[in-house]
Amino acid sequence: MEYVHDVNFAQYNEQRAALINYDRSLRADHSTQISLSEAKADKFIRQLRSLENTAIWGAEHEGVPHPFPGMEFLTGRSVILKTKLFQILFKMPKGGLLHAHLDATVNAEYVLKIALEQPALHVCSAEALAATNITKILPQFKALSKEMFTNSDVALTDSSYVPNSWVNLKTARATFDPALGGEEGFDKWILSALTINPSEAYQTHNTVNKIWEKFSSTFTVSTGLIRFAPVWEQYIYEFFRSSVEDGISYAEVRINFYPKYMFGEDGQENIPHREWLQIFEKMQDRFKADLKQQGREDEFVGARIIYSTLRFISAEELEWFCEDCIALKQEFPHLIAGFDLVGPENVLKPLIYYAECLLRFRERQKELGIDIPFIFHAGETLGDGTEADVNLYDAILLGTMRIGHGFSLVKHPKLMEICRKRNILIEVCPISNEILRLTSSMLMHPLPILMNNGLPVALCSDDPAVFGNMGLTFDFYQVFVASEVTGLIALRELARDSFKYSTLPPSEKERAIATWERRWELFIESIADEEAV
Amino acid sequence: MEYVHDVNFAQYNEQRAALINYDRSLRADHSTQISLSEAKADKFIRQLRSLENTAIWGAEHEGVPHPFPGMEFLTGRSVILKTKLFQILFKMPKGGLLHAHLDATVNAEYVLKIALEQPALHVCSAEALAATNITKILPQFKALSKEMFTNSDVALTDSSYVPNSWVNLKTARATFDPALGGEEGFDKWILSALTINPSEAYQTHNTVNKIWEKFSSTFTVSTGLIRFAPVWEQYIYEFFRSSVEDGISYAEVRINFYPKYMFGEDGQENIPHREWLQIFEKMQDRFKADLKQQGREDEFVGARIIYSTLRFISAEELEWFCEDCIALKQEFPHLIAGFDLVGPENVLKPLIYYAECLLRFRERQKELGIDIPFIFHAGETLGDGTEADVNLYDAILLGTMRIGHGFSLVKHPKLMEICRKRNILIEVCPISNEILRLTSSMLMHPLPILMNNGLPVALCSDDPAVFGNMGLTFDFYQVFVASEVTGLIALRELARDSFKYSTLPPSEKERAIATWERRWELFIESIADEEAV
Repeated sequence: MEYVHDVNFAQYNEQRAALINYDRSLRADHSTQISLSEAKADKFIRQLRSLENTAIWGAEHEGVPHPFPGMEFLTGRSVILKTKLFQILFKMPKGGLLHAHLDATVNAEYVLKIALEQPALHVCSAEALAATNITKILPQFKALSKEMFTNSDVALTDSSYVPNSWVNLKTARATFDPALGGEEGFDKWILSALTINPSEAYQTHNTVNKIWEKFSSTFTVSTGLIRFAPVWEQYIYEFFRSSVEDGISYAEVRINFYPKYMFGEDGQENIPHREWLQIFEKMQDRFKADLKQQGREDEFVGARIIYSTLRFISAEELEWFCEDCIALKQEFPHLIAGFDLVGPENVLKPLIYYAECLLRFRERQKELGIDIPFIFHAGETLGDGTEADVNLYDAILLGTMRIGHGFSLVKHPKLMEICRKRNILIEVCPISNEILRLTSSMLMHPLPILMNNGLPVALCSDDPAVFGNMGLTFDFYQVFVASEVTGLIALRELARDSFKYSTLPPSEKERAIATWERRWELFIESIADEEAV
Repeated sequence: MEYVHDVNFAQYNEQRAALINYDRSLRADHSTQISLSEAKADKFIRQLRSLENTAIWGAEHEGVPHPFPGMEFLTGRSVILKTKLFQILFKMPKGGLLHAHLDATVNAEYVLKIALEQPALHVCSAEALAATNITKILPQFKALSKEMFTNSDVALTDSSYVPNSWVNLKTARATFDPALGGEEGFDKWILSALTINPSEAYQTHNTVNKIWEKFSSTFTVSTGLIRFAPVWEQYIYEFFRSSVEDGISYAEVRINFYPKYMFGEDGQENIPHREWLQIFEKMQDRFKADLKQQGREDEFVGARIIYSTLRFISAEELEWFCEDCIALKQEFPHLIAGFDLVGPENVLKPLIYYAECLLRFRERQKELGIDIPFIFHAGETLGDGTEADVNLYDAILLGTMRIGHGFSLVKHPKLMEICRKRNILIEVCPISNEILRLTSSMLMHPLPILMNNGLPVALCSDDPAVFGNMGLTFDFYQVFVASEVTGLIALRELARDSFKYSTLPPSEKERAIATWERRWELFIESIADEEAV
C-alpha cells in the first residue's frame, strides 16, 4: 500500500478506510463471524463505555486525584465498581483462567476467616506490636501439633510478649490491644501483610524491584496459613467457587511445589505432593457435584495444574523437581497440565541456567511417552536485552506452549512472528503488570501491540488475592476501557482463545468451547435486556 | 526458525545465538561496519554504563527517592550530571536536531537575562502578587511602544498594584517584595512559569491531559518575551550556539507561524513572517562567520525551518497558512524545509479534518514546481484507536516524510512495515514523552520496538527549555542507559540517520555526513583517551 497520489477527497477516504482495515487485519476480531445480536450488543457497550468515560471517569471522586479510564487499579478500583459496564462484564462468560498462582487466588479476608476456625493455627511476631512498629512487622503463621499448643493469653500487643513466641490465632485476635484497633486492628495488620495497597504500589515502592519485595513478602506470610491441609481444602473449593461466580469456567493454575510438604491437621509438616493433588481432585469433584445438584454443571469444566518451582534453585535441584513432576503426571495425567519456573525474573536465575536440565527433562518425557508442556514465565520485565528479557529466546527455543506475561515480547520482531506462526499464546496479566510497575496504567500496556499483530492472547489475573482483582472482570474491564479499537468481539475472542490454547485434550476442548458458546449467547441476550431497560 | 529438537547443549547454544542474532537483524547497528577503535570504545562505554548503574544509580541521592537508570528525568537530572557517561556523551557529535519547537529551545534563564536588557518589555499580573497567590498567577509580557511606557514604580507585589497594568520588566524585578524573595523571587516566579518542575510532572499534573495544560501555559507566557524582534535575534543566535556546544551540527526547527506578526523594537506588532526568516538567516550567517573565525566551521552545517501552525484553526484558515508557506518557500527555498500542524493531538483537530485542504496544498505545490514535504506530528498519544492515534494513518497517506513522535505507531503492524519500506523516519523525543506522561520512565518507552523493527529513528529534544533537556545529550543518555542492547554503534546510527533523513539537498547531505564522520572519529579517539586515563 503506497500513499495516495493525485486523488480527490472521496478517493482519499476510500483508501484511508482500506489502510485502517489492512492495519487491523491480523486481529482476532477481524474477519470473524458476528451475529446481528452481537453487533447490537457491541454497539451498546461501546456507547456505554463512551458515556461512562465522561459521566463517571470525568467526575470527581474522593481519594482519586486523577481519575481516567484504565488508571492505576488500586486507586481506581472504587470508581470501576460504580460503573454499569463492570456489572455487565461481570456476567460475561470469561472462558479459562490460564495464568494464576494458586497461593494468591482466594480473597485474603476469606483465608483469614477459615484460618481462624483452625485451633492448630498460631501466629507470632518478631517484636511486641505497638503503634510505632505495626506497619513494619509481618505476622508469621504456623500450624502446631497439639503438644505445642500454648494456653498463653499474652497478647501480641502486650509489652511482655516474648518475641517470636507462638500464640493461638483466635486468641491473638481476641486479645489484640484495643488501642491498636482490637480485633479489627488485628485483621487490618494481617490483611495489609497479604495484600498490596495503593500507597505501596504508587508511592513508597514505586519501582519494579521495590514493589516485588513487598509482593514476595505476601507469599512468605500467606504460606503459613494456606499450606495447611484443612485450610488448603477449603481454599481450593473457594478458588473454584469464586472463579465460577465471576464467569470463569476453567483454570490452569500454577502451584508452587518448591516446599516438598505441607502441614497436616496434626501440625506435622508431612503431606507430600501427591496428597496435595488428591485433595485438589477431591475438592474439584465435590464442587462439580455441588454445581450439578444446582443444575449449573455448564458453569465449570474443571481445573488443571501447572507444576511450578522457584527459579532460585540450583540446576541439580531442578532434576528432583522434574522427576517429581513426572511421577505426578504418571499418577494424575488429567491434572498435571504443564511445567514452569516462577519468581522475579529480574533478580532470579535465567532460563538458560536451567536449559541443559530442561532439555534432558524433555528427553525423559519422550522416553516415558508422556507430555508435560513447558508453559514458561518469560519477559516479565522492563529490561531491554537483560537476562529476564532474553528468557523469551530460551522459552521459545525450549518449545514453550504459551508464554507467561511476555511483557517484553513486543520488542522482538522475530519472536513475535514465531509466536504468531507457532500459535504460542501470551498469558497477559494487565492489572498485575500495572501494580508490579511494568506499566503505569493500562494505556501504556503493550497488549494492543500483541493483539494487532495477531498473537493469541488470554487475559489473566496472576495473583488476584494480593492485587484485589478477584476473578477476571477487573482485568477485562481495564482492557476494554483503555482502547477504542477493542469491542465486544475482541473480548469474545480473548475468552475463546483461553480454551483454544489450553492444555485440554481435543475432545474436552471442543466440548468446553461449545458449552462456553451457549453461555456467550445467553450473555449477549442479557445485554439486549439491559438495552431494553 | 523452529524450536530445537533432540539437540545437545552445545547445539542449543548455537541455535540460541542464531535466534538472538536473527531477532536483532533489522536493527541499524546490525551488520554494519565497525572499526577496531569503535569496537573498543563501545566496550568501554558499556562497561562504564554497567559500573555507573551500580555505583551511581545504586547509591542514595538526596531528593531522589527511587533512583534507577532511565528514571523520571526531572527527578534524576542531578544524578545524570554526576556520571562520567554523561560527560562522554556530551562530547559526541549528535548529528541533526530534527524535532524541536523554536520557542522552547533556549534556556529560560538566558531568555530572562536578555529580556531584562530591553526597555520596551513590560510585565503584568492578574492580581497583586502575594505568598498566597504567587504559585497560581502567571506573568504576562509585552513589548510596548515608547508612548506607552510607564514611570510607575509600583511593585507587582504591592497591594496598590492595579491588576493587569504594565510595569517595566527591570523595574518589576527591582521592586519585587523582599518578603517574596526580591529579585531572586521574581526570577523564580518567571522561571517556574516557563518550565515544568518535578512535582508538577509527577504529582499535581500526573496525567497526559493535566501536564499538557501546564506545558501549553509555558508557551503562552514565553511568547511575550520571545516574539519581540530584538529578543528573537539574540534568541536564535543562542539556539545555534548552545546546540553546537552540545554537539548538534544541524537543525530543522519548527516555528509556529500562527501569530501573523511579532513585535518590533518600537513596540508595534507589525513584523511579518518574511522578516522572521530574514532575521533567522542573518543570525545563521553571523553565527557561521563567528565559527569560521574560530576555525570551527565543521561544527555547524546550518538550520532550516519546518513551517508550523496550530491544529485548532479552521480548514478555511489553513488555506491562508498554506499560501503563506508557499510564498516563504519561494522567497527562501533553502530555509523552508517542510510543513506541520502542531498542538496537543489528544484535544485538538485531527489531520483528517484538514486532509482535503492538505491534498490541495500538495496539488498547488506541484503546479508551482516546489516541494514542501509534510513532516507531521502524529500518534503523540496513549490512545488506542482515538483521533490522535488515527492521525498516523492520515500522516502516512498524505505522504509525510517523517513522523513527529509516532508514539503510538508501535501498535500498528502495517504502518510499521510501511514506514520501514518507505524510509519514514520517526522523530523520537524520549524525555518529552516521559515528562508529558506518555511513559513513566525510559524503560517503558517504545523506542526499542522501533529500533528492533528497523525503522529509522532520530532522537530529538522537542521543547528542551521547558523540560530542561537542553541539547541532545540528556536524551541520548536516557536512551543509552535504558537498554543493554543499545551500544555506541546504535548511537552512531541514530546520529547518522538524523542527516540521512533530513531535508538537505543530496550534495549538502553528503557533505554534512562526511563532516560528521570526521568528527565521529575524533570522538572515538577521545574515548580511547578516557580509557587510557
